Amino acid sequence: MDNIHPIFERMQGREDKERQLGQRGLTIWFTGLSGSGKSTLAIALERRLSERGILCRILDGDNVRTGINRGLGFSDEHRRENIRRIAEVCRLFIDTGVVVLASFVSPNESLRAMARDIIGEQDFVEVYVSTSFEECCRRDVKGLYQKALRGEIADFTGVTSAYEPPTSPLLSIDTEGRSIEECVEEIERVVINKITL
Amino acid sequence: MDNIHPIFERMQGREDKERQLGQRGLTIWFTGLSGSGKSTLAIALERRLSERGILCRILDGDNVRTGINRGLGFSDEHRRENIRRIAEVCRLFIDTGVVVLASFVSPNESLRAMARDIIGEQDFVEVYVSTSFEECCRRDVKGLYQKALRGEIADFTGVTSAYEPPTSPLLSIDTEGRSIEECVEEIERVVINKITL
Repeated sequence: MDNIHPIFERMQGREDKERQLGQRGLTIWFTGLSGSGKSTLAIALERRLSERGILCRILDGDNVRTGINRGLGFSDEHRRENIRRIAEVCRLFIDTGVVVLASFVSPNESLRAMARDIIGEQDFVEVYVSTSFEECCRRDVKGLYQKALRGEIADFTGVTSAYEPPTSPLLSIDTEGRSIEECVEEIERVVINKITL
Repeated sequence: MDNIHPIFERMQGREDKERQLGQRGLTIWFTGLSGSGKSTLAIALERRLSERGILCRILDGDNVRTGINRGLGFSDEHRRENIRRIAEVCRLFIDTGVVVLASFVSPNESLRAMARDIIGEQDFVEVYVSTSFEECCRRDVKGLYQKALRGEIADFTGVTSAYEPPTSPLLSIDTEGRSIEECVEEIERVVINKITL
């Protein structure tokens, strides 16, 4: 390794990865109340996209809070750091040509604006899962609303802290009374031309 | 979304991704002194593997310290957190079926053991780039050794803090007097059967 020519020794860039995978990297960011259906939609969308041969990575509380963000709590500062790191992970996947399906309550415009800034406007698609508070309470899949309403969770979005709806999401989806398939087809129609080369 | 059956709504697992990509997820962890050739080898290996259609992601100080680990310094605690987060990012890529080429000085056995624990023994391949201190000083591509020897860098591995060589790396590579191609072919021969399905 006597003759090192750093200028030719560049790691592969995003375009190389995208060409290799035959798809464009992108982050589809699902925001909405707990129980609104974000992860359900992300999982169904992943299945549909993978049937087209598109490589996706779902990021959600389960695989992020127990891993890269282990140790972060729910203070304002930690919520911000939580979203910041998630957005940086999204960037690494986008630079590998992968489509990230990010499913996070991300209740404030400022949190989502930070994610958009880090990820980059053109690579960030916001999907607002707008299922109502009443419907989320009724579903209460994880029993969290009952707990929060009993005062057993200090800071729970929709109950003890506010959810600020996005001002201009690419898509708003209210899942109430609609099938998963119907919702996912709508999302797919809107995003597919951003993914295919 | 009236009938939610969480048990069927699982996100795709590693096996699905590996089948889709036709490769196995793995982390190849390059450790060694600054200037030993870690990143040069990672870049050359990425090129060779991608020619076989294998999707790789290089992680190094440049794309990690300016992103997910922005704000971390070089105290013992921060070095540990730096490697912890990197290892968690490796896991996410492995779970997406991707081959990670991680290039970090990672000077202590305890740091590398933590990375191995998080990533998982069977998914962690350690490559020790054993180029000597003298040779790294002589190359001094970034001028860091000169600076460190002048006392201008507080804590620089090999000068003011020790480098502990790995006790049982899968491979040791001394790059002195060898071509990049020769070194990379050797690495490829050793790792390829861990990547191909």
